[in-house]
Amino acid sequence: MLHEVLAGRPLTRLEYQQRLPQLQDRLLDAQYELRKGRERAVAMIVTGIPGAGRSEVVNELLGWLDPKFVTVYGFRASNDVERERPPLWRYWRVMPPRGRIAILHSAWYEDFLHESVRHPDRPEDVVQREVERIRSLERTLRADGVAVVKVHLHVGPELQRRRLRKLRGDRMTRWRVTGEDLWLARHYHRVERAFEHCLEATEQPSAPWHLVDGTDRQHRALEVGKVLLDGVEGRVGKASRMTGLPAAATLRRRAARIRLASSHRGPRVAEEDYDRRLEELQGRLALLSRKRSFAKHAVVVAFEGMDAAGKGGAIRRIAAALDARQYRVVPISAPTPEELARPYLWRFWFQLPPRGNYTIFDRSWYGRVLVERVRALTPRADWQRAYAEINEFERQLAEHRTIVVKFWMSVSQEEQLARFKERDRNRLKRFKVDPEDWANRRHWQAYDQAARDMLALTNTPHAPWHVIAADDKRHARLAVLRHLCQRVEASLG
Amino acid sequence: MLHEVLAGRPLTRLEYQQRLPQLQDRLLDAQYELRKGRERAVAMIVTGIPGAGRSEVVNELLGWLDPKFVTVYGFRASNDVERERPPLWRYWRVMPPRGRIAILHSAWYEDFLHESVRHPDRPEDVVQREVERIRSLERTLRADGVAVVKVHLHVGPELQRRRLRKLRGDRMTRWRVTGEDLWLARHYHRVERAFEHCLEATEQPSAPWHLVDGTDRQHRALEVGKVLLDGVEGRVGKASRMTGLPAAATLRRRAARIRLASSHRGPRVAEEDYDRRLEELQGRLALLSRKRSFAKHAVVVAFEGMDAAGKGGAIRRIAAALDARQYRVVPISAPTPEELARPYLWRFWFQLPPRGNYTIFDRSWYGRVLVERVRALTPRADWQRAYAEINEFERQLAEHRTIVVKFWMSVSQEEQLARFKERDRNRLKRFKVDPEDWANRRHWQAYDQAARDMLALTNTPHAPWHVIAADDKRHARLAVLRHLCQRVEASLG
Repeated sequence: MLHEVLAGRPLTRLEYQQRLPQLQDRLLDAQYELRKGRERAVAMIVTGIPGAGRSEVVNELLGWLDPKFVTVYGFRASNDVERERPPLWRYWRVMPPRGRIAILHSAWYEDFLHESVRHPDRPEDVVQREVERIRSLERTLRADGVAVVKVHLHVGPELQRRRLRKLRGDRMTRWRVTGEDLWLARHYHRVERAFEHCLEATEQPSAPWHLVDGTDRQHRALEVGKVLLDGVEGRVGKASRMTGLPAAATLRRRAARIRLASSHRGPRVAEEDYDRRLEELQGRLALLSRKRSFAKHAVVVAFEGMDAAGKGGAIRRIAAALDARQYRVVPISAPTPEELARPYLWRFWFQLPPRGNYTIFDRSWYGRVLVERVRALTPRADWQRAYAEINEFERQLAEHRTIVVKFWMSVSQEEQLARFKERDRNRLKRFKVDPEDWANRRHWQAYDQAARDMLALTNTPHAPWHVIAADDKRHARLAVLRHLCQRVEASLG
Repeated sequence: MLHEVLAGRPLTRLEYQQRLPQLQDRLLDAQYELRKGRERAVAMIVTGIPGAGRSEVVNELLGWLDPKFVTVYGFRASNDVERERPPLWRYWRVMPPRGRIAILHSAWYEDFLHESVRHPDRPEDVVQREVERIRSLERTLRADGVAVVKVHLHVGPELQRRRLRKLRGDRMTRWRVTGEDLWLARHYHRVERAFEHCLEATEQPSAPWHLVDGTDRQHRALEVGKVLLDGVEGRVGKASRMTGLPAAATLRRRAARIRLASSHRGPRVAEEDYDRRLEELQGRLALLSRKRSFAKHAVVVAFEGMDAAGKGGAIRRIAAALDARQYRVVPISAPTPEELARPYLWRFWFQLPPRGNYTIFDRSWYGRVLVERVRALTPRADWQRAYAEINEFERQLAEHRTIVVKFWMSVSQEEQLARFKERDRNRLKRFKVDPEDWANRRHWQAYDQAARDMLALTNTPHAPWHVIAADDKRHARLAVLRHLCQRVEASLG
């Protein structure tokens, strides 16, 4: 029973008045350092049962901090736009940039607790999967520089009853008690069990829980303040060793199955066949995308491949088959300062399509394990954990009926060279020429290795890779469209 | 009749092959300069009747440009989240930053044309107001550095019929024709009349229309390309002289009614009364905000006032009355580079609350005519036009049942000085002390004048100002809450 282990003790007014200024002073200093350093963000999650003083504590904190660099978020039942994306989408959207604090009322525990309390008999595997999503999210946040500070405020059943009764008894404060509060209070033990299970299941070194006794107004404020201070100063949560690359042997075995070198050249497609087959595939895709059942799905297409592999041309052939209102093409290049200040996957979460829509990524989140790995733009530990994070990301998409279609456009070194030269000759293709491209070419072997690892480690059942022989552009474009059609068809059933 | 004035002429393949490379070459150069200069963005709007080749032309343009710096947007019927904001909100959201091109399928003409065609008998004043909103938007965009390039593609009724018939006759291309297209084609003359009226009503020097004959595939592509080139090179749309300040005499007359100097001091509120009255007002606001009818409204609260006028304290007293999920406090400080690259009002549009919610701005869009004017951060012409733009912005909010509540916290120079000193003494208020504040204080007279002009020029029936005597904090907080309650009550009726 949570309420039996509550360890608060009432403070005298004098004690409070002595301690508060010290704490507030340190909090302001810490907030200033946080801003200046821009190395860390803080996401503080406050949960609590009715009557434990959750809102009051948050208001108190806001009075102590510099409010310009703190944002408070509360979450209601999801709206349309949110329901059309995976459940964690709406939390990713409000992730604070380094240097800032976000205080989240319940955050991702909101939905989880609501379900646990209202439907205590949910199947074990469903619950387990939700827990896994949360644990994985918090690990990733911690590793990406967001301190996740979790506080739960609790009081015993008698005190809860007394507080709610008192509030309701007074005409002036009656409004503070909602119908939801009363329902939760009537089911005290069920609610407490749900919290107990939740706290236990989501406890982990990278994001530990702090149980705070809500009995005494002053005690609880100081306690929560201290936890926040630890978070802002970087003492909350140990970076856990994230799943890195599997052993080299496993990797080689898996990679052996992928023969990139021999995959550049598909059967040549004659020009006269091409137009007819292209139109046919585009028609097939267009009809699929207008089907009634398609409105229950969304599609995320990710294109990867060496420079000049033909990504842009393939994308335009897909786009031409779709209604302009139905898709968005998102070219991915180096992150902006705004994006760099957020966890790595933030900018991709941001672009997820609503139901019935396509987002086509011209390069993607795989940049982490390709260019960022090869050009050493990201520390080794960070790109190594990215494989698992990406798999989890794509799994969440798939679980939400988003069809994830990934293309590796496989071009040979000779064909790439020919295309580069053609670009240099043709002024009208000059926007395609980037000095970086030649530099990347010098790292061909490293890219090739990175691509193999990527294909081996992220080729999951819910988001398989399609390796496209891209030396012949016509063949490649038809193959891309055909795979895309097949994947959509398979999902519509 | 639009189709009688179409002036296209078919191009031979040879002519096309000669002209296209020149045009594309210049487009790429222009796009490069646009990126480099970051002085201008381009919003190209393409409308057209079915069969005139709208999508084809856009695809062609995309093939010519560097797609990394162009985004194409199409718009469907509004979704939930969009419907909860004023109609132009969803277009503001996708406004391109300087240096980029956005191609918008129909953009804000989408809803207007749809209504005109389906409901040709709408009341004249409704139509007129929609036209006004569009004209005002385009003028503002042009003045804020977004070239608005408007192209309408048209063909005659026989050709339209022939094209649709041909597409439908072929199994391979049938999918390109939607039910909507057929309906529009069956009502050719009605549709044409709607376009004619629309083009005429929204023609203005800052954003002229370009009528393009869609008959010949190659001719139309080159024509649209040329118009885009003019836009990218800054030759489309003359900056119109925007409504500036009224004559000095009018201004003085209006301002005379506002006596700021005498408005600092309200009746003092005793501490023992304060708590009771505060709780009462908070309860009143809380109950109002939970009313069923409140869910049809939203509230935008804007706080302005000299430094240390007590904005933060008043905001916290409002927040304490609301459900954490129901409001957001948005502190406004100097714009980020991302925000600076957009039209001025962009960042405020972005923060508008959904129905049933509050957004509380701690400083607001009025910065344009206060700090930016006084400290000469913005050219005179730009802050002068801001009064009219702000009035239009707030009017759109009000028209959408968003209650706009504006507070000027009026503090005296002596009281401000006392508060500054207290802040300097009290380490725990150090986050409130900014060297800029002392600098601002030296411009007191200029701020005072700017505030008077602002109050005189933006005190509209749909968004009136509340001047709050702020020398006594308790009085000020109660007054703010009381006005807010009254305004919400009045709107709920």
